[in-house]
Formats: sequence, structure tokens, C-alpha cells
Amino acid sequence: MIFICNKTKLQDAISIAQKAITGKSTMPILEGIYIEANNNTLTLIGSDKDVSIETKISADVLEQGKIVVDAKIFGEIIRKLPNSEVKIETLQNNIIQITCEKSNFNLIHMNSDEFPGLPQINENMIFTVSQSLLKNMIKGTSFAIAQDETRPILQGILFEVTEGNLNLVALDGYRLALRSETIDTNNTISAVIPGKTLNEVAKILEESDENVNITFTTNHILFNLGNTKVISRLLEGEFIKYNSLLPQEYKVLVEVNKQGFQNGIERASLMAKEGNSNLIKLDIQEDNIIITSNSQLGKVREEVSINLQGDPMQIAFNSKYLLDVLKNMEEEYVILELTSSVSPCVIRNKEINNSKYLVLPVRLVK
Amino acid sequence: MIFICNKTKLQDAISIAQKAITGKSTMPILEGIYIEANNNTLTLIGSDKDVSIETKISADVLEQGKIVVDAKIFGEIIRKLPNSEVKIETLQNNIIQITCEKSNFNLIHMNSDEFPGLPQINENMIFTVSQSLLKNMIKGTSFAIAQDETRPILQGILFEVTEGNLNLVALDGYRLALRSETIDTNNTISAVIPGKTLNEVAKILEESDENVNITFTTNHILFNLGNTKVISRLLEGEFIKYNSLLPQEYKVLVEVNKQGFQNGIERASLMAKEGNSNLIKLDIQEDNIIITSNSQLGKVREEVSINLQGDPMQIAFNSKYLLDVLKNMEEEYVILELTSSVSPCVIRNKEINNSKYLVLPVRLVK
Repeated sequence: MIFICNKTKLQDAISIAQKAITGKSTMPILEGIYIEANNNTLTLIGSDKDVSIETKISADVLEQGKIVVDAKIFGEIIRKLPNSEVKIETLQNNIIQITCEKSNFNLIHMNSDEFPGLPQINENMIFTVSQSLLKNMIKGTSFAIAQDETRPILQGILFEVTEGNLNLVALDGYRLALRSETIDTNNTISAVIPGKTLNEVAKILEESDENVNITFTTNHILFNLGNTKVISRLLEGEFIKYNSLLPQEYKVLVEVNKQGFQNGIERASLMAKEGNSNLIKLDIQEDNIIITSNSQLGKVREEVSINLQGDPMQIAFNSKYLLDVLKNMEEEYVILELTSSVSPCVIRNKEINNSKYLVLPVRLVK
Repeated sequence: MIFICNKTKLQDAISIAQKAITGKSTMPILEGIYIEANNNTLTLIGSDKDVSIETKISADVLEQGKIVVDAKIFGEIIRKLPNSEVKIETLQNNIIQITCEKSNFNLIHMNSDEFPGLPQINENMIFTVSQSLLKNMIKGTSFAIAQDETRPILQGILFEVTEGNLNLVALDGYRLALRSETIDTNNTISAVIPGKTLNEVAKILEESDENVNITFTTNHILFNLGNTKVISRLLEGEFIKYNSLLPQEYKVLVEVNKQGFQNGIERASLMAKEGNSNLIKLDIQEDNIIITSNSQLGKVREEVSINLQGDPMQIAFNSKYLLDVLKNMEEEYVILELTSSVSPCVIRNKEINNSKYLVLPVRLVK
């Protein structure tokens, strides 16, 4: 194998494929990055047991071939090279030579035959979304993934395609995040994708209108970004019927400036950190929410202007759960839908009906 | 105590005084920040056993007084407040009330009488340097402070005033860093200041021509930046007679582009990391230095153009020690002065004779 390639292009491709390489595999070959050179194209693949990422770049291929090299050291070497053309060729005894200007590295490589191939997926393209939209939907739900491992299915995000909508849903025992977008398909799909995979996908997705084609099989999901493909296994099991968790009605509706509400809660939570309970109380009045909290160190009172429909009420929350939601919302004003101090609170955008968050209150001992 | 003060100004002052507060003291009062309000001035002090920092800002003082509040929570509260005027007043029962727009905090405070005062220092100003120069001198030597605690004196930086020069010197068993600047004084001083203190001082110093006045007493050094004073205790004991460590002559002189040399060593050290020895070999030839290193993973060869005076030679180093030096040098070209493969190497600027670094080689087993 001999090829010449631009340093920056190679570095970027390594950085993409590396996102699949966790270093936690028991198979040493999976600490390597697979590189195949032919037809003036380099194909780089990184894999662990849950996810594989393949990316292609153009290169001047003088002799075709394929190798696997330790991803960490190879990535570091390429990153530190001068910004110039890099020549890579295989020598005898499982060695590759990397040359760039006056730098010359000899590096041991592994046998590419041992590298597991990508899962074979028949790309009957199921649906398409823009990269920026998908990135945003993942970011807007992944914070609500369960952190504990007692219910593995909740460590994933539900991808649900139904009635021309793509819904992403994540939940743990305390809150639920739902993002919806209209897509052009008649299919119906329901699959749960590991949250860790999706966070890596989100890092590769760009803030652009470029499309991602998404294909589902029984066990896998494929994100095709053009030059890059991400294939993840699906989580096994049934996701919770989240629709039954969403309240169908409410008694109190609060309209509030998102940033002002978020700032008030952030300050109040400074006092709520003591003992890690993060407990803050909301006193919802005619024109204001009064946010209070106290600890051994002192107490805090914050006042935030609101529009209220319904009767004044009081409710308490773990401030972290409210902040997680508010930080991931983008509109200037948000709506809280409440029923009682022991019922879940729904938080949604005022204008665009594309997200719904549900947070359980903390029941106060009287 | 009642005062009104700009939020950003207060936040900046807290951040300066906080640099002295390590949170590692056994005295709870030293986790607090001392605040005194009078004559339309706030004085903030943070202290631990080695260092005290006092800073003053203007404020609208309506009622004079002094308190001590927990530095961490007070700093967090002020930082999170809206960018506006902050009113702080003492209430009954050791409470201060912090008000800013619609935010209201009640915070417990401590008794200011328990706070240790600043060491009394008679400011017979000894000498003056610019802030940027002192910052640079500290940065250029502090990396060479000994990390292990077997010789406490080497955890400090020697401040030596002699013959109209200010010399800063740090050394451990493997390298020495010396920075010199001409100053306007006839005094002779030699004192060792804890490295940790100086790193905090360096953070407060600005990249400006503003002066720092430096005063020494038997046990303390005072840096007076105008609104801010830093007082540190001195380390006890004699510093090593560093002059006797610096070679008086050399046989080989190498002139090399600093960045090119540094980049080559950085790449070579990628291969030298294996087993943490960081060993790189320099083959100094007529027109080039060939840098090589190898490990189980492979090997590397880097070529860097040089001007040589003297005979070609070979020498080996721990790459980390060379990189620490080169990263802290600012000129385009540097000079290496060498004698043999087992003698220390001196590295200095080509143009300005204000710094001298000494690095011991690694003796290779033949």
C-alpha cells in the first residue's frame, strides 16, 4: 500500500473514524483504525461492539492495500505533522512508513484480515433529515437518558417514525424529553439507539442543511452523511409507552421568558446545592414566579415576571431537571402546563410545537 | 455595613482575593473572604498560611463595617447576578443580604475579628519592574521548580537582586532555569518565594507596562500592584549556589530555529512516551540535527537544519525537559552550548542575553 494525502484531510478523517473507538474493547484489533487505499480513495473505519464509523477521502493511491494501525498513536502522529502532503507506505515486517517533509515515522501495523467488517446493510433509504435538525433533536433529548444501568433500554433514545413525524424520546424516572419533526415518509418505525452512539453521531453532524439518510434494519441503524457512514446496533427490548406518561390536560398555564426563568433558577440553585437535594420552590402568583431555596448557608428569593392562566399554586422541583430542559430550549418564551403540586409539569415552546418536556415535581413533606 | 457596588467590579475583586484561598487550611475562617467597607472603598482580603492578597475597589458605602463570608459561595452568587448594581447590607444574626435587581440572597457571615490581619510590612520600596516583565520572568522559570517535597527550598524560586540585576532561578535535579533583567537599584537581596505563590501572582499580573513595587522583609515579600497587594512568606533555608552549576565554557555551539526544533522534538517524543522514559537522541551533524526515538510501536527520525560551530556529536535527553525550556523561550533562534554527551547542555536566546537554561543529558548505556 502506498498513498499520498493532504495532512489536514487525513487528520479530519481519523478524527471522525476515531469517534467509534472507545479503547474499552477486549479485542486489541478494535483499538486500531482500518485504512484501505484504492481507486484514489482512502476508506477509514473505526469500530467497537456497538458502533462502526466509516469515512472516505480522496488520496493519490500509488499502490492499493489495506492495514490496521493503532488509532491513538497514528492519530497523534498525523496531528503533529507539518501541514503538508503525507506519504504512507507499507514496508516489510508489518511496518508502515509515514513521511512528511523532514519527518519520518516507522510504525507497526496489525493484520487487516482480523478487522471485523461493517455490518451489511441494504440501504433502502427510509427517510432523510438535515444534519443540523438531527443534531439539534439529539442534543435536545439526550440529556434525559437514564444514567443508571438498571433499565438498559432507558440508556437509549427512541426513534419513532409515525404518521409523517420523526419523534425522538428519552426519559429516566424523573423527566421526559420529546422532540418531533415532520418528515416525508409513510413508514412506521420504532427503534431504540444507544445514547452514547447518538452523542458521537451528534459530534459528527454539522450545522448544515446537508442531508442525512437514515436506514433501519432489524438490528441496526445506518446514518449516511455522504462521505461518512455511522452504523449502530439497536438496543433490544420495548421502550416505555411514553404517550401514556404525557398529561392530556392541565389547570394552570404559565408563560415565562426562558432566559430570565433559567437565570433565576440557576441563582436559586446555588443555595440548593447543599446536601445535593437541589430543591427549589416555585410560588406561582398572578404576575410573578417567586423562586426560593435555602440551606445551612442562607436563603435566596428570585422574582420572575410571568403571564398566568388559572389559579396561583406552589410546586417544588429538583433545579437540575428544570435547568437541563431550559438550557436545551431555543425560543424566547416557554410555556409551563401544571395541574397540581404533585403532578408532572410539561414545558414546551410558546411558538413552535416541536418539543415537549415533562419534569416530575418534588413532593414536599408538610 | 451597607454598600452598593458594580457587579463586575466586585466579581473581579473577589476573583483576585480568592487566588490566595486554597481551601486547604485547617482554619475555617480562611475559607472566607474578608470585606471591609469605609470611605467609599471596599477592601477584600483572601489568605492562607503562605500568602495573603488584598485588593481595593471603589463603592458607595452607606454604612461602614467589616465581615467575612464564605469565599466560594459568595463568589458564585456575585458571578451569577445580573450585570447591574449590587447592594450588600448586614442584617441581624450574622446575616448579610445581597440584592441585585429581582434577586435577593441572605447569607450567613463569619466574625471579622477572627480573620488574621495582613503581616505588617514597612513599604520601603526596594525596586520596581513592569507587570508584564515580572509575569514573563515567573512563567519562564516556574516550570523548573522541583515537584517532589524532599528539598522544600527547591519548591521555590530564588529572587536575587545583585549588581543592578534581578535574577529569578528555579531548578530541580535535572534542569535549571535562569531569567535576568536589569533593574534600577543598588541593593543586594536573595530570597526564595514559594512557587505556588508566584504562579498565583503571575495570574494577577497583567500584560502591561504598569509597575509592580516589590518590598522584602526578613520573612516576607510584598508585591504592590497599586490597588492590589500580594504578601507571601519566604521559604527558609539557603538556595543552591546555582552559579557553580552553570558551565563556564563549551566545545560545540548549535544555532537552531526554535519552533522547528520544538516541533521535531514534539513529534519524536510521541514515540518516546512508551514506558515514560521520554528518551530522544540528538545526532548533531554539520548542517542538521537528526532526532530519533523508538519504542515497541516503531521509530521516528526528524531532521532539523542548524548552524554548527565545533565537532559533530551525539547526546540524549528526556524530551520533556527540552520541550519545557523551548516552550518558554520567545526568540526565533536559540543557541545550544554543549561539551560532551555526558555534560549539561545550556540553551539561551540568540539575540537577548536575558535567559539561560541548563538541561542534563541522559547517559546512554553503550
